[in-house]
Amino acid sequence: MAALWSVLKGPVRTSLTNFRRPLTTMASRVDERVRDLLAEVVGPGNVSSSLAVREQHGRDESFHACKPPDVVVCPASTAEVQQLARICYEHDLPMVPYGTGTGIEGGVVAEQGGVCISLWRMADIVALHEEDLDVTVQPGVTRVALNHHLRHTGLWFPVDPGADASLCGMAATSASGTHTTRYGSMRENVANLEVVLADGRLLHTAGEGRHTRKTSAGYNLTNLMVGSEGTLGIITSATLRLFPQPEAVASAVCPMPSVTAAGECTLQLLRSGVPVARIELLDEVMMAACNRYKGLDYAEQPTLFLEFHGTAASVQEQIHTAGEVLSGCGAGQLRWALAASERARLWEARHQAYYAARALRPGSVGYVTDVCVPISKLPQVITVTKDDLVQSRLTGPIAGHVGDGNFHCILAFSEHDQQERQRVTEFCDRLVTRALAVGGTCTGEHGVGLGKRRHLRHEVGETALGVMRQLKDALDPKGLMNPGKVL
Amino acid sequence: MAALWSVLKGPVRTSLTNFRRPLTTMASRVDERVRDLLAEVVGPGNVSSSLAVREQHGRDESFHACKPPDVVVCPASTAEVQQLARICYEHDLPMVPYGTGTGIEGGVVAEQGGVCISLWRMADIVALHEEDLDVTVQPGVTRVALNHHLRHTGLWFPVDPGADASLCGMAATSASGTHTTRYGSMRENVANLEVVLADGRLLHTAGEGRHTRKTSAGYNLTNLMVGSEGTLGIITSATLRLFPQPEAVASAVCPMPSVTAAGECTLQLLRSGVPVARIELLDEVMMAACNRYKGLDYAEQPTLFLEFHGTAASVQEQIHTAGEVLSGCGAGQLRWALAASERARLWEARHQAYYAARALRPGSVGYVTDVCVPISKLPQVITVTKDDLVQSRLTGPIAGHVGDGNFHCILAFSEHDQQERQRVTEFCDRLVTRALAVGGTCTGEHGVGLGKRRHLRHEVGETALGVMRQLKDALDPKGLMNPGKVL
Repeated sequence: MAALWSVLKGPVRTSLTNFRRPLTTMASRVDERVRDLLAEVVGPGNVSSSLAVREQHGRDESFHACKPPDVVVCPASTAEVQQLARICYEHDLPMVPYGTGTGIEGGVVAEQGGVCISLWRMADIVALHEEDLDVTVQPGVTRVALNHHLRHTGLWFPVDPGADASLCGMAATSASGTHTTRYGSMRENVANLEVVLADGRLLHTAGEGRHTRKTSAGYNLTNLMVGSEGTLGIITSATLRLFPQPEAVASAVCPMPSVTAAGECTLQLLRSGVPVARIELLDEVMMAACNRYKGLDYAEQPTLFLEFHGTAASVQEQIHTAGEVLSGCGAGQLRWALAASERARLWEARHQAYYAARALRPGSVGYVTDVCVPISKLPQVITVTKDDLVQSRLTGPIAGHVGDGNFHCILAFSEHDQQERQRVTEFCDRLVTRALAVGGTCTGEHGVGLGKRRHLRHEVGETALGVMRQLKDALDPKGLMNPGKVL
Repeated sequence: MAALWSVLKGPVRTSLTNFRRPLTTMASRVDERVRDLLAEVVGPGNVSSSLAVREQHGRDESFHACKPPDVVVCPASTAEVQQLARICYEHDLPMVPYGTGTGIEGGVVAEQGGVCISLWRMADIVALHEEDLDVTVQPGVTRVALNHHLRHTGLWFPVDPGADASLCGMAATSASGTHTTRYGSMRENVANLEVVLADGRLLHTAGEGRHTRKTSAGYNLTNLMVGSEGTLGIITSATLRLFPQPEAVASAVCPMPSVTAAGECTLQLLRSGVPVARIELLDEVMMAACNRYKGLDYAEQPTLFLEFHGTAASVQEQIHTAGEVLSGCGAGQLRWALAASERARLWEARHQAYYAARALRPGSVGYVTDVCVPISKLPQVITVTKDDLVQSRLTGPIAGHVGDGNFHCILAFSEHDQQERQRVTEFCDRLVTRALAVGGTCTGEHGVGLGKRRHLRHEVGETALGVMRQLKDALDPKGLMNPGKVL
């Protein structure tokens, strides 16, 4: 969902709360004795059973119903996380890791109650190797905090899912974002992970302290843990690849005659070898929404937002080549920006997309779809999806990372209108079916969490699901790690 | 080891044969009845128990002793591979997949005999999606064959381990090569794999027919299989990312005052953001060997071989920036080449490195080390290693993918001199210990196979090794898949 999710934390959470199913009252699985054991590990001030704290930790940014854990504990070190895991393992208590709670598929919802392990106190940048272009961070370090820390080093970490998420959480959900076309997602940019397993064992996926650019030593446990959403272990530190900050950056906003033309243009740009840093599509509904919401005057057409990184000369050349490709595809008047402030202004529409979409339906709530398809199929899938939105009488402007074939419908609907909610559900199912039919996936970057579990079998097949289950059973035989998620 | 391994297939295999341990005579595990069952699947002409065929399939390009399988079968389809697996599973027979046999850590050695499944007949390019920049290939397709097939499409597949290996085999060993600094290794460039599991089940790691640029749908089974060296299943097709062919390519050969200066120069180039396509180091011993072997006149100093890809203007700019960095590090006279023929001539020394190294000791055999370290540690590790070579009285010129922190000592030694062989073994152990001490790995790209198993525990630790064992047991409970490798 990229940048627009950064605006989600405030009002959306409030408005979505009412939409959640009521809390079930069930007996706590954590009795006084266990609570004391947990408090012995982290100190009494770092254990809470208050309803407010538990509710805060029982939901993420999404509309998934809040299910609070029985207790929230805040360890200060990996050793403490290990001790907590041993206690939970011994007492058969579910463990739910919690980073910043900025996920949007219900990853932190405590489906079976249990112990929420909130990792914000572990906020050290453990090791920064500037010369090796890598850094090791604890789960309390967010991507904005890291890039702030790096600002004078000439380096940065480019994976940007929008929200100021925990980097370890981003590893857990295999996050990506607007820079993925050029810099890759978490899959490509995690070199090593420290993970506490269900029974408290400490795993270093590539070996303790190792931070090489590549390795072929044994099974790739790093990439098994990336995207495992807390169901195989608790990530307590991540070693990430860093990149040199680009010398020059240029942005462009470019109205296109149609979604198909925008898709064709994206294909041509990628084929041309122009190393596009960002290529985002907003459809005409979204552009109109942004104009209305922010008093902008963009053409209300499908529009590409582009960004180029490189040396000053190389960026100029990219602008030139991209300009030719864009005109060849019938692009309208381009707006270019080189200065940071100008670029920020240019990207404003993109960054405000989520609010702008919801403002189309005052009082609405939002749900954001996440299919990803082979790039050549994108225009066709978006076009049919837009027709479906009209047929379904739904408000769902579209924003997408088209360079990756990934797009989102930001559905704004009434939480009180049962029929509309039903139409939303049916629309989402048809969208996933449509994406799967052309070789796509139900989730490009949001993860499976609770919301996509029912699609996973259809997407990966019975054997892959069976293998995932075998791996889960091998590493978490008691089924205690973030139960009810992914599988 | 990149390009130099492409020259290994002929004479080296012959000369190394004598060095191998004698074949043990043991009763075949495949009796007449099972042999008939296998023949029913693939046809009698595609099953062989002849000693010559079995010996050919019981060794790779390395010095590891030949251990022939009991029988070699050549299936023509994935369905046949599944049927073969079911027969082996039912009769508790080891299965060893065989692609091109170009590995160098004994990956195809039939440690426990059994059935070698040679996949050369499955040589289809299953699907080429030019617009989506991806392709799906069967195991009989090599990287050279693929790039030949792609030559008029404007696309190419950049991962180049030197040997004309099977692309599925490259996935199995998590191969990389000289272009990895810019384009990544197999880890980053495999989107989906079709894998026959031990019991004959067919797994599509990302779901059948899916070929998206990214996904966060469930556990990353693709990257679990990449690098699993045939021990978790038999890869029967791979979906790979393709890249646009660069418009312009320039190469340079650049003598440096010292290994340390070459390392510093590499760090500065990477930090500068120049998107170097290749950056290879040959030490002064290797340069002298190449001069002698090919009658060249390069300066006998540590030397960087560089390559730049991009538009004509961007390559010119890269040349300019790189030139400044190189002079700043005390580089000698650079030789530049833009035309393909000139570039080939320039790279000749690099491509001949293996033969040149062995020619230093006529009648010698070779062993190639493969440590990879954080880039900043490379000069120090190479310097100490060169001292160690002198102290150990060993001939071991050095060539490395320094942009990845990966380098190889090409040890040329007498197979008849027990003491020298002992010194080789001890030297290799010290080298691995040295790499591990600075956060490195025992194998950057050759895989574990047989040769690195004893280092794996030290490298990844007891817990990671335990987890790898748990995964192996989950997916291959009878231990039939390429037994004796990796773990």
